[in-house]
Amino acid sequence: MPPYPLDPADLTAQLIRCPSVTPAEGGAIALLETLLTDAGFTCTRVDRGGIANLYARWGQRGANRAFGFNGHTDVVPVGDAAAWTHDPFGADVVDGVMYGRGACDMKSGVAAFVAAAVDFVQDTPPDGAVIITITGDEEGEGKDGTIAILDWMAFNGERMTHCLVGEPTCPQEMGEMMKIGRRGSMTAHITATGVQGHSAYPHRAKNPLTAMVRLLARLEAEPLDRGTPHFDPSTLAITTIDCGNPANNVIPARATATVNIRFNDTHSGDTLSAWLRHEAEVVAEATGVEIGLKISISGESFLTPPGELSALVAQAVQAETGRKPVASTSGGTSDARFVKDHCPVVEFGLVGKTMHQVDERVDIAHIHTLKAIYGRILRDYFA
Amino acid sequence: MPPYPLDPADLTAQLIRCPSVTPAEGGAIALLETLLTDAGFTCTRVDRGGIANLYARWGQRGANRAFGFNGHTDVVPVGDAAAWTHDPFGADVVDGVMYGRGACDMKSGVAAFVAAAVDFVQDTPPDGAVIITITGDEEGEGKDGTIAILDWMAFNGERMTHCLVGEPTCPQEMGEMMKIGRRGSMTAHITATGVQGHSAYPHRAKNPLTAMVRLLARLEAEPLDRGTPHFDPSTLAITTIDCGNPANNVIPARATATVNIRFNDTHSGDTLSAWLRHEAEVVAEATGVEIGLKISISGESFLTPPGELSALVAQAVQAETGRKPVASTSGGTSDARFVKDHCPVVEFGLVGKTMHQVDERVDIAHIHTLKAIYGRILRDYFA
Ligand SMILES: [Zn+2]
Ligand SMILES: [Zn+2]
Repeated sequence: MPPYPLDPADLTAQLIRCPSVTPAEGGAIALLETLLTDAGFTCTRVDRGGIANLYARWGQRGANRAFGFNGHTDVVPVGDAAAWTHDPFGADVVDGVMYGRGACDMKSGVAAFVAAAVDFVQDTPPDGAVIITITGDEEGEGKDGTIAILDWMAFNGERMTHCLVGEPTCPQEMGEMMKIGRRGSMTAHITATGVQGHSAYPHRAKNPLTAMVRLLARLEAEPLDRGTPHFDPSTLAITTIDCGNPANNVIPARATATVNIRFNDTHSGDTLSAWLRHEAEVVAEATGVEIGLKISISGESFLTPPGELSALVAQAVQAETGRKPVASTSGGTSDARFVKDHCPVVEFGLVGKTMHQVDERVDIAHIHTLKAIYGRILRDYFA
Repeated sequence: MPPYPLDPADLTAQLIRCPSVTPAEGGAIALLETLLTDAGFTCTRVDRGGIANLYARWGQRGANRAFGFNGHTDVVPVGDAAAWTHDPFGADVVDGVMYGRGACDMKSGVAAFVAAAVDFVQDTPPDGAVIITITGDEEGEGKDGTIAILDWMAFNGERMTHCLVGEPTCPQEMGEMMKIGRRGSMTAHITATGVQGHSAYPHRAKNPLTAMVRLLARLEAEPLDRGTPHFDPSTLAITTIDCGNPANNVIPARATATVNIRFNDTHSGDTLSAWLRHEAEVVAEATGVEIGLKISISGESFLTPPGELSALVAQAVQAETGRKPVASTSGGTSDARFVKDHCPVVEFGLVGKTMHQVDERVDIAHIHTLKAIYGRILRDYFA
């Protein structure tokens, strides 16, 4: 049995010292498996495709109330190592701030919910189950991470009735924001193929760049929508256009571009794909240039409508920080996009300002506050 | 003294066997210098910047009537050598067709006017001067070629009263087209510099690609003009757009594009530069993206209005081929753009279909016809 109460800052430091850059487990998953097993959780390693994942349950399988936490121990690469002022895997502490890759995204979040859960089941064993799902594949492709755990759960009759994802959600101040959904994300790779020619005789060529510019101008001509009650307006960004033709007197044969769309519940991957295909057809017909689209949908938009779970989280945050968190759907994707198919899901965590950056760091006081919030959520949930 | 009449096909073959890929002289200029000196021309080598150029005059300097020919002996590289069915520097003849780099552009043209001029001054010494200007820098940058000869002429009181450039001018059939001017040509290199950001938050970034697409769409929105009595409509071609951003979730900081404009006498390099700068400013103001323009003007448009020279050429072509040549201003640039500042200039030459291509070739009969046309022009001019 580990010593209680568990110190979440100490656990964060232990996790930072595990070099778990995706897909490496780095000792982080193994450490948590041992700790949770010692604390009375039934642990199952749900490894898949070379990725280590951990499923831990305290209480009965299939309990009527089973509160789940989800998080990841994998981290993005160090980046410019020389620019760090502290060892990225050292967990150095200076003036109450801990430095290291994963300090805010999200070894601290994992440490906080693990510590809260372990203390909770020890202090006030609930009538229900507490479930911890931790993946080593959130920063990577994500195909063998939380999805693997959820697949395994479905197959084995394991379930969560509600789930909290511990990703950093606060832009600047601790407690200011939780996430009740996310916009969807999709990427379209566009290829325009025309007919090469001399730039003195453009009518004898078919310029793929003319078609590309016309298509992209059409895609950006109007906002996709004006936002919805819980969502910001959808956005479209051209992320690259490339041709690589060095000759000023030559009209090229081929050009490519990429467009990334973040979309709210006005749209779906399907409706946007149809729109893109229609626009491409219109331009292809007008220009005679062939336009190919390769569309990949990273995630549909989703929303956990304000209700029991979001109210529970908001009350706990307010009680511990004095701030009432805004219920937002902004930001990039997270594994909540997978969990939402399993049960209602809300995200709440630390200030994410330094995530993925050089000198990623966390206020140690915030880790303790976060553990307190997670502990209060558990107590209120099972009260 | 060379044997008369000079065989222009034989001279073409000798020139093709000189490997004179720009900037190499390959023996071509030296061969012509010897031949013309032997034929009674006063020859001066006007070499500059490593380029060999030849000025040859028969008759008095500053004569009241001084008919000039202009051409080049340099050639573009062989290209895909393995794809040639004949040695590019072999001048092989098969079924009345001679193969080799420069066969139509324009060793044949040079051979035809040199042979015509040598025969003419031998047979009917004119009251005036016959001038031959040959450069080794037409296919390259052109800054040390015909310009060097014209600079030297101005300095030394040498002048042509009219000039014929012997570039290939006929698209398909011998005799169908002469050129009385050319459209201008300019290139704008556009750089758009914005602010990088995450594609989930485009409002925090300034996407240079949005500005680039908007600018290019504006430039292509309307035709530049509808053409003028002697000119086709001006054209604008986007020749490349480049960004090189591999990350779908990143809005890039910078993008570049190149636009090539071929313009008629509705415009000048200056008016078009002002238009481009204005359009760039409008888009920069609307988007907050910085837009830089680097404009280079390869040549202004010019026209030798139909008159004595073009009538002379047209009559000679019709007499020798039965075809009345169209007076065109189409096509790319040629050294006529420099000569036009010196005296009225018209271009007439062979069928250019295979120029710059693999298996460049010329009908031997056409070389003889061309010599006959050039000879007739000289006789009529001095009649
Ligand atoms: Zn994360
Ligand atoms: Zn040429």
